[in-house]
Amino acid sequence: MPRYVIGMDYGTLSGRCIIIDVDSGEEIGESTAYYAHGVIEEQMPNGQKLPAAFALQHPNDYLDVLSETISDVLAKTGICASEVIGLGIDFTSCTLLPIDENGTPLCFLSQFEQEPHAYVKLWKHHGAQREADEINAIAKERNEAWLSIYGGKISCEWALPKILETLRAAPTVYRNTARFLEAGDWLSLMLTGRETHSAPFAGYKALWNEETGYPSNDFMIAVDPKLDGIVGSKLSKNVLGMDQIAGYIDERGAALSGLCVGTAVSLPMIDAHAAMPALNITKDGELMIIVGTSACHILNDKNGKKVEGICGYVKDGVIPGYYTYEAGQAAVGDIFDWFIKNCLPAAYEREAITRGMGIHALLREKASRLTVGESGLIALDWWNGNRSVLVDSSLTGMILGLTLRTKPEEIYRALIEATAFGLKIIVDQYEQYGISIQRICAAGGIAKKDDMMMQIYADVLNREIRIASTTQAAALGSAIYAAVAAGAYENIQKAAERISKPSQKTYSPCPAHVAAYQPLFEKYKQLHDFLGNHRIS
Amino acid sequence: MPRYVIGMDYGTLSGRCIIIDVDSGEEIGESTAYYAHGVIEEQMPNGQKLPAAFALQHPNDYLDVLSETISDVLAKTGICASEVIGLGIDFTSCTLLPIDENGTPLCFLSQFEQEPHAYVKLWKHHGAQREADEINAIAKERNEAWLSIYGGKISCEWALPKILETLRAAPTVYRNTARFLEAGDWLSLMLTGRETHSAPFAGYKALWNEETGYPSNDFMIAVDPKLDGIVGSKLSKNVLGMDQIAGYIDERGAALSGLCVGTAVSLPMIDAHAAMPALNITKDGELMIIVGTSACHILNDKNGKKVEGICGYVKDGVIPGYYTYEAGQAAVGDIFDWFIKNCLPAAYEREAITRGMGIHALLREKASRLTVGESGLIALDWWNGNRSVLVDSSLTGMILGLTLRTKPEEIYRALIEATAFGLKIIVDQYEQYGISIQRICAAGGIAKKDDMMMQIYADVLNREIRIASTTQAAALGSAIYAAVAAGAYENIQKAAERISKPSQKTYSPCPAHVAAYQPLFEKYKQLHDFLGNHRIS
Repeated sequence: MPRYVIGMDYGTLSGRCIIIDVDSGEEIGESTAYYAHGVIEEQMPNGQKLPAAFALQHPNDYLDVLSETISDVLAKTGICASEVIGLGIDFTSCTLLPIDENGTPLCFLSQFEQEPHAYVKLWKHHGAQREADEINAIAKERNEAWLSIYGGKISCEWALPKILETLRAAPTVYRNTARFLEAGDWLSLMLTGRETHSAPFAGYKALWNEETGYPSNDFMIAVDPKLDGIVGSKLSKNVLGMDQIAGYIDERGAALSGLCVGTAVSLPMIDAHAAMPALNITKDGELMIIVGTSACHILNDKNGKKVEGICGYVKDGVIPGYYTYEAGQAAVGDIFDWFIKNCLPAAYEREAITRGMGIHALLREKASRLTVGESGLIALDWWNGNRSVLVDSSLTGMILGLTLRTKPEEIYRALIEATAFGLKIIVDQYEQYGISIQRICAAGGIAKKDDMMMQIYADVLNREIRIASTTQAAALGSAIYAAVAAGAYENIQKAAERISKPSQKTYSPCPAHVAAYQPLFEKYKQLHDFLGNHRIS
Repeated sequence: MPRYVIGMDYGTLSGRCIIIDVDSGEEIGESTAYYAHGVIEEQMPNGQKLPAAFALQHPNDYLDVLSETISDVLAKTGICASEVIGLGIDFTSCTLLPIDENGTPLCFLSQFEQEPHAYVKLWKHHGAQREADEINAIAKERNEAWLSIYGGKISCEWALPKILETLRAAPTVYRNTARFLEAGDWLSLMLTGRETHSAPFAGYKALWNEETGYPSNDFMIAVDPKLDGIVGSKLSKNVLGMDQIAGYIDERGAALSGLCVGTAVSLPMIDAHAAMPALNITKDGELMIIVGTSACHILNDKNGKKVEGICGYVKDGVIPGYYTYEAGQAAVGDIFDWFIKNCLPAAYEREAITRGMGIHALLREKASRLTVGESGLIALDWWNGNRSVLVDSSLTGMILGLTLRTKPEEIYRALIEATAFGLKIIVDQYEQYGISIQRICAAGGIAKKDDMMMQIYADVLNREIRIASTTQAAALGSAIYAAVAAGAYENIQKAAERISKPSQKTYSPCPAHVAAYQPLFEKYKQLHDFLGNHRIS
């Protein structure tokens, strides 16, 4: 009898599901569905205007996507639910929601229907910068040991600032919250009836580490006396490592997913991390870059050195036996989409329509004709703040070098180059702290489709870049974890060897471009250091 | 018998002519015509591509505009040429062309038809930055006394860098040039048969001053041995002050203009300066700002103090008895036009069309709804370099504060604010050097039509701004000079009192906005000082 596993990848705007033959490793089918509410940024359902930095989601959308995509993929492939032996889930993170004692999201209760803080705070919700600043200042003052794990600074995107924001802005929501859960953990609970807290979420986003656990209660009280006792109550201490599983689908889970009671469910992963086994990255020395709306840069190393400005590292967080480091860029594809929406002249739109091509394709065509440095433009890629290595969401984007002759495609290319320079800052930081990067593997939608951009990345980084051959790396990784959870493979390495997809495309740096980018990067670095340290105030 | 004078104003893209009743001061009619070749920036007529910083014109366009507009205005008003007693001309500057012994522009000769350097180099031609840097370095090294008159630095837009560029890049053109003339002086020659060199052109743009004349021949040789003897040969020493006239129309002039032989022609003026008597600015303490594609800021003072970074000052250069100072911003309206052409999304274009309004009007409407500082954006207005007070055409524009939420109208408003901040830097510089500015009078197309922008200027500068009631201030000023040249008035003051137009609109600073702009200007100043001094390289 054939055996299958399903990998579910929950992104910013949509959820994707793939189904894999667990023995052959072959991908049999896939399905995608968009969240009905998308990202709630401007206003609440009743028209109440949201503050500028808000980014919320509706948890019911996650359940809808679960049932829609699984039933769709089963229908399209003709596979029976009984042939599916495991389900794996990855999710954006830190994407946090408050639930009551029954596991019900507070926003499902009529009392909190119009309360923004009762909804899911999406990873890119930036309402808690003030709280993050406060937490950083107190942690620094108290010389908290865990701070160095996170590069000396935590981001407003993480759990504790988001929780503190709720405590301050919506005390009733805080009081009525039984747990603050990552959306991935909440889905596990809905599927299995068992509440767990996945180590990658806890380790990368909630200041937990294997040796010392969460920050001390003294620290919590120093931040706010009302946080007294939060660990073990509103914040679960039941943290499970990736060698364990979430559980098995129960009746409620079967109703929600259309899968059978008893199907194994692996621990939920951070979306970006799940891609790592999918690309068969199980050694050190290879950086995985996931380039989408934002970017995530993940690396295994044996030693656990502390690197300033890196988002964090967790032992056995992804691949057993390794510390896995994560760094990020808070906006990449989002910047190009902003540009298309806000800066693209009508003449370009008309040209794209006339020639029957996409806007991005047209801009790439025009931008690829420019030589390195021709435009004189230098941009800083901080349209959504800087995650690594400055860890400051209050930073903003910049374009320098504008003249009356500057053309849209020159700005577009400068934005692409800015994201490459931002990545080089991260790579240089790892190397400066003694972690060597030999190879780079790129995944994500942009990596697969944008030749020009990937060649610019190879030229700026002066390294070969191999491209993941699947655009569903995260979903594939989740399927690999599901295969292990279901007992089809002994460990993640063996499952990855069979199920991962070898890459079929590599970009090599062009020496002339490498040389030409050198002075441009120096300029970027100077602007980065000057503006990144708020020397303008 | 009624008596009339004509004022001709030669701008960047078009020439305008107005006709005035010399006794009543009333404006009777006007006419405008565009240059057939416009600004030659991209390529020569034969398709030869021009370097990036080139901006040329075809001198024949000036003659066409002369005959077209004068015949049009006479036809429309029914005035006879014999009733026109004087003609005055103002021109962009330094707008320079090479002529042969007959007064023929070299570009009219078939030998030089395809030679860019044989054409008019328009004021905004920026091909001579290297030459300007060289001249500045040598002048500084030799401690040339005249350098302090120009704020310690000369611009690549001025005569000597443009001439040196021709000498280096097109030696045959240089050898065959009898004179390098300002376009205004060349038109005087065409009209009167008499070659003169108007003191404002010589004083503001060709390093001449009343006391010591041009820089010494030793200096010229130090710059380039081939410049030996240029003063008195290719550069006319026949400099005339504004108390003199250019001459009287001869037969060729009559054929070109349609006016009568013997009609008085005043000395040509720099366009911006001509507006001064038109606005009846004949005292010190009032700054005239002319806001168009670029901006020019002009001020009378009795004492002749040296001000660093100001383009220059000439005694009796505009109003007898005063030193007249000039400072400038190399792009203002040009920046907004660049924005419309290169950055305006199709949705905005469609909205403007649907609502039957102009693009600028739509953007002003949206931008005026924003509060001061709301967008978080700060721009540096250096899309065409910085003329005052940094005197560096290699500087480029910048926008800081961009986020995924930034909207087009926010950028548009930030660009407007950047030009206001740039002006404040100039006003502050004058005051720092002891020249007090009590009032501001704004002229130019933008001043008249853009309420939002003028209010922002009043708020940023914290000063009342009165608006010139004519959009033809320069042409009107030329008519005033023509009236004096024709002997209808004893001096420029008396002519100005009768013919100038009183302003009918004033913007007063709003205290709340003045306070809100203070920290934004501080930020602008910090960026200005940091990036303006090339601390990023």
